[in-house]
Amino acid sequence: MSDLPRHIEIHEEGPREGFQFERGIYPLDQRVRLVDMLAETGLRQIQVASFVSRTRVPQMADAEQWFARLRPRSGVRYTGLWLSEAGFTRAQATPGISLLGTLYFYASDAFSRQNNGIGAAEMAEQQRQWIARYRQAGLAIEAAYLMTAFGCNLQGRIESADALRQAEDIIELCRQEGLVLPALYLADTVGWAVPASVERLVGALRERHPQLRIGLHLHDTRGSGLANVYAALRLGVDLYDASVAGLGGCPFAGHASGSAGNICTEDLVFMAHEMGIETGVDLPALLEAAREAERIIGHPLAGRVMHAGLLRS
Amino acid sequence: MSDLPRHIEIHEEGPREGFQFERGIYPLDQRVRLVDMLAETGLRQIQVASFVSRTRVPQMADAEQWFARLRPRSGVRYTGLWLSEAGFTRAQATPGISLLGTLYFYASDAFSRQNNGIGAAEMAEQQRQWIARYRQAGLAIEAAYLMTAFGCNLQGRIESADALRQAEDIIELCRQEGLVLPALYLADTVGWAVPASVERLVGALRERHPQLRIGLHLHDTRGSGLANVYAALRLGVDLYDASVAGLGGCPFAGHASGSAGNICTEDLVFMAHEMGIETGVDLPALLEAAREAERIIGHPLAGRVMHAGLLRS
Repeated sequence: MSDLPRHIEIHEEGPREGFQFERGIYPLDQRVRLVDMLAETGLRQIQVASFVSRTRVPQMADAEQWFARLRPRSGVRYTGLWLSEAGFTRAQATPGISLLGTLYFYASDAFSRQNNGIGAAEMAEQQRQWIARYRQAGLAIEAAYLMTAFGCNLQGRIESADALRQAEDIIELCRQEGLVLPALYLADTVGWAVPASVERLVGALRERHPQLRIGLHLHDTRGSGLANVYAALRLGVDLYDASVAGLGGCPFAGHASGSAGNICTEDLVFMAHEMGIETGVDLPALLEAAREAERIIGHPLAGRVMHAGLLRS
Repeated sequence: MSDLPRHIEIHEEGPREGFQFERGIYPLDQRVRLVDMLAETGLRQIQVASFVSRTRVPQMADAEQWFARLRPRSGVRYTGLWLSEAGFTRAQATPGISLLGTLYFYASDAFSRQNNGIGAAEMAEQQRQWIARYRQAGLAIEAAYLMTAFGCNLQGRIESADALRQAEDIIELCRQEGLVLPALYLADTVGWAVPASVERLVGALRERHPQLRIGLHLHDTRGSGLANVYAALRLGVDLYDASVAGLGGCPFAGHASGSAGNICTEDLVFMAHEMGIETGVDLPALLEAAREAERIIGHPLAGRVMHAGLLRS
């Protein structure tokens, strides 16, 4: 266990994931309250909202107001998501937002076509334009995501060797653009990873690119989420996306299950703390936020620790 | 990953755990149907019912009839649970049951007092009588359980060194009785284990007693269940208790959460198969049984794969 990191960094994605995933539109003051509670827990980065089509995603139509109503807490980065130039322009005009230069690549060509209307190669070329655009805007590129790094329901399993090659293509594309990629996220977008595949891909990447910081964006679609985290922790991975209360997924029937269920922030924090790994997060405060999230959403969410309670030692 | 076992043995505990845990009494034909479905999945050992006080546990009052109504499948062991001599006598008189000689020890003295009315040391002494009783009945001792091996809410955390010492006391007690213990289960009775503590305890036990077969009985109370399995798999552990659909627990508020939630059989089978580890279980058939369990119970159960579906590769 010698490679277990002493500290991990967790990026909270629950608000954006959760309120976008649910069909209803929740009152702005409830969404604001949840983000304000999260900002008090010690989490240093919280994805608040996405800047996407207001007609296609009405849940996110008031993203600007959401940011405007937050009680900004110093040391916390409030981030947003955009996929188009129009969305980026809206984000740039939003006070209080931390604009992060993030690149998106797809291991699955079929999944990219379904989600973006273009294949993985064309999507990769578009990222060059995003690099240029972020530079023009004075933003540093913080990270790239390799989406569907382990597989997807359209194209099936992505073998580690293929994902590794694609990760190296990303590194090379960045190099060509004069950029040393600070972090690469392996995203298990629709829940195909198991510990063995995490270990294979992270291990190979770590061996060939020891300086590259690796992050994991994991979904707990089939229950292996924290097992996958443990496989990554053992290899020293110290950067994780997660959603408070498991927001953004519904483990039960009736939702589009294939894409459901980010790993749960407080379950991750609990496991890390119990293993002596620091997160900087106040777990009881986070549990309060998780319970508030469940009250707001109005149906049971997937988080475990919020329902079971903390250990009494 | 060289120590990952090629095959693991899973003992199904869902029927007994689930129908005993739920407050309602479910029709016998539904309980029979679930066990019959499970027996068709390739699972080789299924715990059906417990022989306990009919007034205190009315859900299990008709344990004998439950066994009598099963459609026995060759190669499947249908087992039961008892804690008293009277219960054992009932089990002995039940046709179709596989009687297993199992011993129960407690790492937590406080938990033993609460559950058994006697402390851990006295409980251990009683196990000598069970050894004698099983021998008189012509039963082999199959396994011993060390309950609350990682901690409990009454006594707090059990350090690995303490649990190891208690495991060795069990081995020594058996040796004094002329018995080489075939398997020792480490039971995380109320969900205190994390991968690091599993690794410490299993690793120490493995090192000192390489011939001893280790089993794990894990609860997913705080979300680390399959992460704990992965930690154990890496150390070669090939014996697991689990509950179909996560029966026997409720991840949501309103139940006695401290004791809730065995790891889910089909999520375990899924993870194992995806890592190339055989279980002998037909996963689609098991998913059908899990969905039937949820229909019978009548509220959402914790299993993930049963809701998300299998991978489409």
